Amino acid sequence: MAPLHTFPLCRSVATSFTAALLAAAALAQSASQPPLDAIASDPAKLGWMIGSPPPHDKLIKFSDGSFRTFPQTRWAFSHLREFVPTRVIPRGTGPVSPLPRHERTDLDAVTFLPLDRKETMTWAQSLLANYTDGVLVLHRGRIVYERYFGVLTPERPHIAFSVTKSFVGTLAAALVAEGALDDHAPVTRYVPELKRSGFGDATVRQVMDMTVGLKYSEVYADPKADHWDFTRAGNMLPRPAGYQGPDSYYEYVVTIPKEREHGDRFAYKTPNASVLGWILHRATGKSLGDLVQERLWSKLGVEHDAYFTVDHSGTENGGGGLNLTLRDMARFGEMIRLDGRFNGQQIVPKAAVDDIRHGGNRDHFTLAGYKTLPGWSYRDMWWISHNEHGAFAARGIHGQCIYIDPKAEMVIIRFASHPIAANSNFDATSLPAFQALANHLMAAPH
Amino acid sequence: MAPLHTFPLCRSVATSFTAALLAAAALAQSASQPPLDAIASDPAKLGWMIGSPPPHDKLIKFSDGSFRTFPQTRWAFSHLREFVPTRVIPRGTGPVSPLPRHERTDLDAVTFLPLDRKETMTWAQSLLANYTDGVLVLHRGRIVYERYFGVLTPERPHIAFSVTKSFVGTLAAALVAEGALDDHAPVTRYVPELKRSGFGDATVRQVMDMTVGLKYSEVYADPKADHWDFTRAGNMLPRPAGYQGPDSYYEYVVTIPKEREHGDRFAYKTPNASVLGWILHRATGKSLGDLVQERLWSKLGVEHDAYFTVDHSGTENGGGGLNLTLRDMARFGEMIRLDGRFNGQQIVPKAAVDDIRHGGNRDHFTLAGYKTLPGWSYRDMWWISHNEHGAFAARGIHGQCIYIDPKAEMVIIRFASHPIAANSNFDATSLPAFQALANHLMAAPH
Repeated sequence: MAPLHTFPLCRSVATSFTAALLAAAALAQSASQPPLDAIASDPAKLGWMIGSPPPHDKLIKFSDGSFRTFPQTRWAFSHLREFVPTRVIPRGTGPVSPLPRHERTDLDAVTFLPLDRKETMTWAQSLLANYTDGVLVLHRGRIVYERYFGVLTPERPHIAFSVTKSFVGTLAAALVAEGALDDHAPVTRYVPELKRSGFGDATVRQVMDMTVGLKYSEVYADPKADHWDFTRAGNMLPRPAGYQGPDSYYEYVVTIPKEREHGDRFAYKTPNASVLGWILHRATGKSLGDLVQERLWSKLGVEHDAYFTVDHSGTENGGGGLNLTLRDMARFGEMIRLDGRFNGQQIVPKAAVDDIRHGGNRDHFTLAGYKTLPGWSYRDMWWISHNEHGAFAARGIHGQCIYIDPKAEMVIIRFASHPIAANSNFDATSLPAFQALANHLMAAPH
Repeated sequence: MAPLHTFPLCRSVATSFTAALLAAAALAQSASQPPLDAIASDPAKLGWMIGSPPPHDKLIKFSDGSFRTFPQTRWAFSHLREFVPTRVIPRGTGPVSPLPRHERTDLDAVTFLPLDRKETMTWAQSLLANYTDGVLVLHRGRIVYERYFGVLTPERPHIAFSVTKSFVGTLAAALVAEGALDDHAPVTRYVPELKRSGFGDATVRQVMDMTVGLKYSEVYADPKADHWDFTRAGNMLPRPAGYQGPDSYYEYVVTIPKEREHGDRFAYKTPNASVLGWILHRATGKSLGDLVQERLWSKLGVEHDAYFTVDHSGTENGGGGLNLTLRDMARFGEMIRLDGRFNGQQIVPKAAVDDIRHGGNRDHFTLAGYKTLPGWSYRDMWWISHNEHGAFAARGIHGQCIYIDPKAEMVIIRFASHPIAANSNFDATSLPAFQALANHLMAAPH
């Protein structure tokens, strides 16, 4: 099998892309042919998209799916707008909120034991193990650690993938707290178009907590998963020639059938986030982009514009299309850690953050079988650890993360481009690292 | 014929788009069915892209070409990034350069006689006649007039179309002045790939002044013009199903044949700008986006990020893909008026601006037959009037304009979405209006 970075370019989109996905899955699972490691796949060193035009083996395209094929992803995840249409979330003209800096050199040497392994690893090593593009650690509101790898810079937005969902869930929780959204209401009160779909008899709360019983597979390693059709509908993957399927997220979600009863188990399915975005639009009259801008971006004192990828009807990808800078994501995370208060104002109601932190039904979560997340739950599109520190997280494929540890007064923000999509594949070198850092900061607060 | 704003959406791209173009051309030329006027086509009033999702008759798409069909263009030209991939030109973190404001209420009533007409028109009337989206007048460096229509705002970038070329030509002229680009050299010294094309025996200077004898039609009203194939190659129009043509601007320009000798007549053909961008990239090792950022955007004290549309190989559309705000374009125009000096520094060498203002060969220009531009010339991708005021301009289809009148110490910046592409169709209500404003400001400087 040819290595992925020389995967031949061709216009036969569906074939090449499916092949690329299969190849990626095969590579990731093959011990004899492991993917390039973080250093070998350094996108700056590989020279993607350099030249006029870039030579064919350095070219990354939307049309052949290479923008979502490792190791090209190590470049593309920091350049999403160069591949797909996007909608700006303007920062406005207000002042930037300060993020005080107190950098520490002792964190790199913090050691931890990866899950299911017998040898310890250092924090610095974990960054490479996880194909980190950028990482920032806030302790008591100060930047104690900030690193960029490859082509990411402090000014460059990176795709947050499903961390986006936690933004959407936070907005929904805020509207519920304000009484502007009824989470007990049926979805169809806001979006009657969903009546005949699997969402037809679900409640808003079931969507927010992803307990809707949808017939929809989201196994990333399976190129035939429904999720890739959903992604194609939303213009985040190329479509095969002659494609006649749904042309937008909304056109897709109305086709998802029901598989089982709602409300009795957690089932992580991205269309819930699209539907929640739809509900929010109907409840407020404002698009997801406008809601993020008005309620978060204009208040956090962010440094840069963010952007959403949009589908062919202009709808923002609430399931995974937010792109933002590392520091601006840190501002959002710190605001959540501080019960919704940041930059001199209450940005999200404390009741909404309380609801997130309190978490969801742990038994429902257990049924979903996440081996790396024992005892966790999912609430308002956040992942709640229920550990002694009360840690909770926003998580996106390929390693995107906001990890909030209230007891340690710590927030970790990470952008990454791990060759494997599902975080469960590298939680082993992530979650214990976060925990070790929290313990270290608590023991040696400086 | 159905009115364009209810043109049915369909996936049969080539057919519908060609039909739409034909319909637009027919409408524009039909006295019995004139296009909607500026007020009737107000994109805010028509409610494009509002709703979740927008209803079909309010939806604007890339795939059906509606994003380039009037009156949808009145919305889309202020939202280009929502339809195509784009590359940011960051403003950086420096301070915004002040544009002092001294607004005047007397300009609206300034009257002028449109070309070939017998009744006068006021400045205010001309803005509607030209489907203006935004207009800004600088006099002696102060904003004396600034208006936004429809959906354009001070913060929102608008596509500049071929005003982009004047940015590229200015960069080229600057590099020539610095000795970093040899305009006497053959194009092939920088881009050997062009050897077998119509550019094969042309010089850099001939490209800069568009006197290359290419077999390439750019009659915008003709849906079969080569220009639309070029545009499709560059991803600024949808492609028909099964498209196997060039996948980028560069792949297209190498296919353009020679039609006649170079150097003896002006022939406005957009691929020259793409080729000039290619030359600049090879001469400097930097992409057009990087050059605009480093040499202009980081120095002008602009307020906002700008962006380029990019083709499938990530190449910026130097022929017409720059998107920027009205005030930031005004900063660029004022810098040119001030011989390249602005915001406390010499940004473009005075020699380069001198070369632009001195203009090109007027006889060569006359041969091109622009009835509304008698005695003009073209130099460094700027249009030079050679009138008593020494006025010169950057011009983009559908009414984009930078008009610099050195004697009147005036710069006019205009974004528009006129239903007809070619400016020659509405120079009648533009050029005399600019002249009248110049005369008025000189007579009553305040």
